[in-house]
Amino acid sequence: MLPYQSLVLVDRANVLPVYKQISTRLIGLIQDGIIQPGVYFPGTRQMADLMHVNRKTVISAYDELLLREWIEAVPRKGYRVKPQLPGIKPRSFHPKNNFLPAGSPIAKHNYDNIHTPWKRQITNTDIVVNDGFPDPALAPFKDLSNLYRDSIATEKILHLMSLPDEGGLNLLKEAASSFLNETRGLNIGKADMVITRGAQMAIYIAASIMLKPGDNVVVSDPNYIFANEIFAGTGANIITVKVDNEGLDVDELAQIPLTKPVKLLYIVPHHHHPTTVTLSATRRLKLLQLIGQFNFHVIEDDYDYDFHYNNNPILPLASSAHNGNIIYIGSFTKLLAPSMRIGYLIAAPEIVKKAIHLRRLIDLRGDTFMEYILAKMIISGDLSRHINKANKLYAQRCAFTCDMLSRKLSHAVEFTKPNGGMAIWLRFREQYPVNKIRDDAARNGLLLTGMAFHQPGNPNGNGIRFGFASLSEEKIEWAIDILLKILK
Amino acid sequence: MLPYQSLVLVDRANVLPVYKQISTRLIGLIQDGIIQPGVYFPGTRQMADLMHVNRKTVISAYDELLLREWIEAVPRKGYRVKPQLPGIKPRSFHPKNNFLPAGSPIAKHNYDNIHTPWKRQITNTDIVVNDGFPDPALAPFKDLSNLYRDSIATEKILHLMSLPDEGGLNLLKEAASSFLNETRGLNIGKADMVITRGAQMAIYIAASIMLKPGDNVVVSDPNYIFANEIFAGTGANIITVKVDNEGLDVDELAQIPLTKPVKLLYIVPHHHHPTTVTLSATRRLKLLQLIGQFNFHVIEDDYDYDFHYNNNPILPLASSAHNGNIIYIGSFTKLLAPSMRIGYLIAAPEIVKKAIHLRRLIDLRGDTFMEYILAKMIISGDLSRHINKANKLYAQRCAFTCDMLSRKLSHAVEFTKPNGGMAIWLRFREQYPVNKIRDDAARNGLLLTGMAFHQPGNPNGNGIRFGFASLSEEKIEWAIDILLKILK
Repeated sequence: MLPYQSLVLVDRANVLPVYKQISTRLIGLIQDGIIQPGVYFPGTRQMADLMHVNRKTVISAYDELLLREWIEAVPRKGYRVKPQLPGIKPRSFHPKNNFLPAGSPIAKHNYDNIHTPWKRQITNTDIVVNDGFPDPALAPFKDLSNLYRDSIATEKILHLMSLPDEGGLNLLKEAASSFLNETRGLNIGKADMVITRGAQMAIYIAASIMLKPGDNVVVSDPNYIFANEIFAGTGANIITVKVDNEGLDVDELAQIPLTKPVKLLYIVPHHHHPTTVTLSATRRLKLLQLIGQFNFHVIEDDYDYDFHYNNNPILPLASSAHNGNIIYIGSFTKLLAPSMRIGYLIAAPEIVKKAIHLRRLIDLRGDTFMEYILAKMIISGDLSRHINKANKLYAQRCAFTCDMLSRKLSHAVEFTKPNGGMAIWLRFREQYPVNKIRDDAARNGLLLTGMAFHQPGNPNGNGIRFGFASLSEEKIEWAIDILLKILK
Repeated sequence: MLPYQSLVLVDRANVLPVYKQISTRLIGLIQDGIIQPGVYFPGTRQMADLMHVNRKTVISAYDELLLREWIEAVPRKGYRVKPQLPGIKPRSFHPKNNFLPAGSPIAKHNYDNIHTPWKRQITNTDIVVNDGFPDPALAPFKDLSNLYRDSIATEKILHLMSLPDEGGLNLLKEAASSFLNETRGLNIGKADMVITRGAQMAIYIAASIMLKPGDNVVVSDPNYIFANEIFAGTGANIITVKVDNEGLDVDELAQIPLTKPVKLLYIVPHHHHPTTVTLSATRRLKLLQLIGQFNFHVIEDDYDYDFHYNNNPILPLASSAHNGNIIYIGSFTKLLAPSMRIGYLIAAPEIVKKAIHLRRLIDLRGDTFMEYILAKMIISGDLSRHINKANKLYAQRCAFTCDMLSRKLSHAVEFTKPNGGMAIWLRFREQYPVNKIRDDAARNGLLLTGMAFHQPGNPNGNGIRFGFASLSEEKIEWAIDILLKILK
C-alpha cells in the first residue's frame, strides 16, 4: 500500500476543508501517475486512521472522487481508480469549468434585445460625462462613516434590522412622506409609500405589478430606455407618442384610448428623460382630464424634482386629483450619490401592498444604515440644506456648460438650457451622427455615457444627454474642447 | 384690492419654492374667507410687482390654483376665485391625499397570495429569534467606516462608479470567483458571475430568466417560501417533492419528467431550507444523473455553504459535470451582516448575459463601496479569517442551543442537530401547533420570525426555524425558557 499518510498532508489552518484537501491531493496523485488506474484505495476506516481524520471526512473525500469520476465503487471490494481515465494534462490540473453554454435550450425571452448605449473603455485619465448624476463630492460619506462608528446608533439599527422589512424603515417612511408633503404639495403618510433601491427599482416594481402580456403601455419617443426595456420585459405592447418643446404630445395621446385600451402611461413631466423638456401647464391640465376620462394608470417618474434652478418647479401631477390612478416615483439617490440607492414608490393602497411584497421577493430588505442616515438628514434639515447647496453649484455648472456649448459648438449642436436637473440634451446636426461622435470621443479620452438616440427623421433622433452636475468647470471645458476637435 | 404684499409673505430660505409658498398662502386666504368666492386676482404682472417676484413665479402659482380648482380663468377678465367652492374646514387645511384606492381595476396578479409568516410586534426588550442570520456584532462596520473616510480609496471608487455597471465591480468578481474556486472546487472566472443584492435577488433573476407561464418548476415541500412566491409570480406551475432525513426525495423527482416536462428544479442541497437537512451522497449522484438524462435546469441555492462546523462540507453540485444546466447561487450577506446585501449568480454564458441585463433593469448598480470592501477582505484573507472565527462561535451556539432544547423542551420538540448553518429546524409535537406557539411567544416577549410551516400530515408540517447564530447564550436560554413556559 502506498504511504498515504506522507503523500497526503492535511493542513487544518487552510480555508479549504480537510476532505477537499484530501480529494484534491488524491486527484493530483492519480494525475501524476503515482496512484495507477485500477488501484484500490484503502477502506475508509483504514484511511481515516492513516490520516488521523474522522472517517466521515474520508467518506466525503471518496464521494468527491466518485462524483468527479476519478474512482468507482466495486461491490464487496471497495473503491478503485477507474481503469480507463480520460487524457490528463499533468502539472496543470484544474477542476473543469462546468458552466458551459447551456445544454438545453433557454426560453426566448423579451430581455434579449440588450441595448447598451455606451462603449466601455476605462483609463484613469478619461473624462466621463454621464447621464446626469450628482457630484459625489457632495455625498454625506463622512456622516455614513460616523454612523458606522456610533455604537449606540448601530445597536438601535441592528434591532430594527432584526425585524422583517415592510417596504423600508418606518423612520424613513415617516420622514420622507412629510418631506414630500412639504416640497410637492402632497398629503401622504408612511402607509402610502414603499422604499426601494432608487427610482429604477420603483419603475420595475410598478411595471411588474401593473402590466400583463398584451397590455398597452404608452411612452414618449424618445424615452428613458431602461423603462422601455422593463415594459418590453413584461410582454406589454409599447405605444409611443412624440415629444416636442412642451413635452409629451397630449393631443396625440388622447387619440389612443379611442381605438385601444390604455393600461398604463409612463411619463417624466418635470424634466423629461432624455430631452429635459418640462410638460407645459396646458398639457398637464389636459393630461389630468384624460386620466379621469379614460381611467388609465400613470407612472409619474419625478426623479429630479428637487433640482430646479429658479425657485420655479412644477408640482407633480400626483398633487392634483387623480382618483388613485397615479403611481408617483422618485429618488433620493440623485440627492446623495450614485452608490446610495434609495428611491420610493407612492400609490393607492392595493398597489402599495403588492409593491411591498414584490420588493421583498426581489431583495429582502434595503440597507438599513443608509435608510437610517437619510431619515436623520431629512429630520435635521441637513437634506434641505444639501439640496440648496447642490442646486447653487449645479445651476452654475449648467450655465457654464451652456455658455461653453454656445461659444464653441454652436455650428454642430442645438440645445435648450434646462431649468433644472443635471443634464443637457444635446442634439447634433445631421452630419454628425451621435454614435460616431461617441466612438471618436472615446478614442480621445472622453467617455460619453449618457443615453443617446440615433433615429433619423425624429427631431430628437440624434442626441445625447450631457450630465454636467458631477463635473468641475475645468473638466466641462476639457470635454467640450475634445468635442470641438471631433466636430470641426 | 387686498394688500397681497403683506398677506402673502415669501421666505426665500424656505425649502418650499416661492410659487408654492404663494399658492399655499392664497389657498389659506380663500379658506379663511379673507379672499371671497368670485373675487378676481390681480393680473400676473401686477401681482409679480406687488410680491417682488418674477412674473413666471406668479403664473406658476396661479396654474397651481387652477389645477387644484380653487380659481378659474374668465376670458378677457382674468382669474377669479371659484364662485362655488366645496365645503372647507378652516384652520385645518391640508392638500388632499389623492392616493385613494385605485379607481380603475388592477390586474389580478400572482403576487396576491401574500404569505407573512410572522407577527410584527416591536419593543426594545423583545428577544428576536430570526430565520438564521449572522451575528452583526461580527460585521466589518469599522472597515466600512474607515473606507468612507479614506479619500484616496473614495476617489478610486467614485471613478469606478462613474462607469456603467456590468453585473458588479470587476475587482469583486475576480476576487469572489477565485474564492469560490478555492473553497468549492469550481473553476470559474469573473465572466461566469453576476453580483446581486443577496441570494434573494439571484433567485429572482434566475426565475425571471428561466420561467414562462405554464412551465413546470420542481421544489421541495416544505421549501424556502420566498422562492416559491417568486416562482408563483412567474406564472409557472409548482410541483412539490417531499423531503426526508436524506434531503429531497430524488426517486420521487425522477418520476416527474416521465409524465411532464420539467423546466427547472430549485434545490438547497447543503443545508435545506427550512429543514437544514443535507442531501445524501447517493441522492446527489442520482440527481446529477437525472440532470444529464432529462436535461433540465437547476437553481442550486448554496446560501450558507461557508458555515460548516466539522470541516466536512459537501461540495456543491455545480462542481460536478452538469453540462451548463446548473445556476449556482450564493451569498456574502450571511458572512457579513443582514444590511450588507451582496450575493451572486454563476451560470452558463447566455444566462449570465441575460442576468446582467435584468440586474440593471431592476436596480442600476450595487453599492460600489460595499462591493469594494468585500473584494479587499477576500484578497487580504480577512474574509477567510472572519469565517473561521464565526464558525467557531456559531458551532458553540449551535451546541448550546441543542443542549438546552434537549434538556428543557424534549417533551414538545424534535430536531436534528445540523452540521452547519445558522438555524435549527424545530418540529413541535402535534398538540402544539406552531402558529399558536408563535402567538403565545409574542405575547411573552419572544418574536419567532423564522419561517414556519403548519401543514398537518406532513412530517415537517409543524415546524419553525430557530436562528441561533445571532444570539448570545444568555438570550438563547432566555428564549428557550419562554418556550418552556408556553409548552408546559
